[in-house]
Amino acid sequence: MKKYALGIDLGGTGTKFGLVNEDGQVLRSDSIPTQQYPQIENYCDALCTGLKRLVANEGLSMSDITGIGCGAPNGNYYTGCIEQAPNLPWKGQVPFAKMISERMGVACTITNDANAAAQGEMIYGSARDMKNFIVITLGTGVGSGIVIDGKVLYGHDGFAGELGHCKIDHSGNGRLCGCGQRGCIEAYASATGVARTAKEIVTSSTRQTLLRQLADIDHITSKDVFDAAEKGDLVAKQIFDYTGHLLGQKLADFVHFSSPEAIILFGGLTKSGHWIMDPIKEALNENLMPIWKGKIPVSISSLKDSDAAILGAASLAF
Amino acid sequence: MKKYALGIDLGGTGTKFGLVNEDGQVLRSDSIPTQQYPQIENYCDALCTGLKRLVANEGLSMSDITGIGCGAPNGNYYTGCIEQAPNLPWKGQVPFAKMISERMGVACTITNDANAAAQGEMIYGSARDMKNFIVITLGTGVGSGIVIDGKVLYGHDGFAGELGHCKIDHSGNGRLCGCGQRGCIEAYASATGVARTAKEIVTSSTRQTLLRQLADIDHITSKDVFDAAEKGDLVAKQIFDYTGHLLGQKLADFVHFSSPEAIILFGGLTKSGHWIMDPIKEALNENLMPIWKGKIPVSISSLKDSDAAILGAASLAF
Repeated sequence: MKKYALGIDLGGTGTKFGLVNEDGQVLRSDSIPTQQYPQIENYCDALCTGLKRLVANEGLSMSDITGIGCGAPNGNYYTGCIEQAPNLPWKGQVPFAKMISERMGVACTITNDANAAAQGEMIYGSARDMKNFIVITLGTGVGSGIVIDGKVLYGHDGFAGELGHCKIDHSGNGRLCGCGQRGCIEAYASATGVARTAKEIVTSSTRQTLLRQLADIDHITSKDVFDAAEKGDLVAKQIFDYTGHLLGQKLADFVHFSSPEAIILFGGLTKSGHWIMDPIKEALNENLMPIWKGKIPVSISSLKDSDAAILGAASLAF
Repeated sequence: MKKYALGIDLGGTGTKFGLVNEDGQVLRSDSIPTQQYPQIENYCDALCTGLKRLVANEGLSMSDITGIGCGAPNGNYYTGCIEQAPNLPWKGQVPFAKMISERMGVACTITNDANAAAQGEMIYGSARDMKNFIVITLGTGVGSGIVIDGKVLYGHDGFAGELGHCKIDHSGNGRLCGCGQRGCIEAYASATGVARTAKEIVTSSTRQTLLRQLADIDHITSKDVFDAAEKGDLVAKQIFDYTGHLLGQKLADFVHFSSPEAIILFGGLTKSGHWIMDPIKEALNENLMPIWKGKIPVSISSLKDSDAAILGAASLAF
């Protein structure tokens, strides 16, 4: 039996990939800069060279590899294509799984990054004993991987789980989102959304805050807001309160939808710890029907950040 | 092979039940008044007497019956219990499926009314060729039955699909809902919600409207609002616009969640036809991500109203 798989975490900036064993250990890993390959063919060549090198360096051959899994923005599990991904250099419909399979001689499966994270949680993470749960990724965007009856939900067309593009502002004047809509939760409750909120407050008010002392307000990050909150900054705390409440309200909707056993959060914003988790939990419970109040645990992924995306992707192959 | 089933539509006011064949025909049906049985034992006795009479009058015996299905408010598919149903005379946890099975000598399966409707649509209605769709019931309340990969979604605890209790008003000052929360979509977008909106406008403004001519504003119904809209009443039209937009916005969230092939609406409010359907579709498409805009059909159930709930319940048994 083949005991190894390759996992690819295809991101807008960089692509990380690794060789993974059945026990969920990333044995070897490497990366290439996604944006430096405007031609998809060149990108696939470079990626496959890298993947083959990992296999060879571990003293294995491709016949030891059971398959390749890839988490990518707008990756469609059904078609194997990356479709209209706004943050990637390649436009239109890219037959990514086919291109990798052909170069590697092994089947390649793709899905979006949040679905890969959910798959990883189910196989290696804190959802190992769960059949119904939701993973929310809070990074540059807000993604979601929904597991129902032990399977990732893909829906009719492969694109289920776009929670980040549910709106929290229907006025038409909400923040512009990468998807072209206004008012999506992603524009508020991602790590980037936290930075936008911070920048708005600093530039549009005269309130006292440590955030005003940052050298470059245009490049403020959620980490800066976290650091300020840790130092007792009231504006920073309020930013997390605001963000967490918006997200918690929306999570309540999703509990009403699929009645999960738990919600697992993943990604950069979770590093803000209790500052973001407390208001999320508070707003979630405030907005749940009585039968669910206090019963839906919200936790931070237990998977090691650097490995989780590769593991999740590789788990598609096992 | 057994070709008949019994279906029970257990409602807060009345209970309808019928004998159904494999082709989805209701051969015989009857009803009893739910509220006249404060004791659950007496209710079950009366119901089972009625069910047995249907079977006998058709010239059949219980050995011809493959099973019994029941749609009931707060009916839990997993436990077979009706749990804390606010509009039923029996409090707490009622082991309904067991009580009926014991009296009838045939297995009884229960679920909530919206899930039964979804099951009915899948087996006999307009969703016969679909594997992923959502049924929304718009009656006294707002219910939802979600079908994923050809199966009704029950979630971790059996209560998935409570879309009616997602909030559209998080201010804490929204309308009080039967579930005890404030601001639930059910308090606005049900037939009852339409009546509440109408009453609010008539009693809190001096606007000219045919609705003001009704004998008893306290008993206004969504049918009255429909009649006024048909006569060109601007306030009535505006009530449907308001209601449809709220519902359409929320439906967009659910498309982002599960990516269904279609949404099917069911129940009293759908009788308002294009007055309610047009704003629902408009708001849905305004709030969908570009990949789904214009692609998710919203239709009214094709099942005959009087039979649909019985058929849906009976379909649980087949």
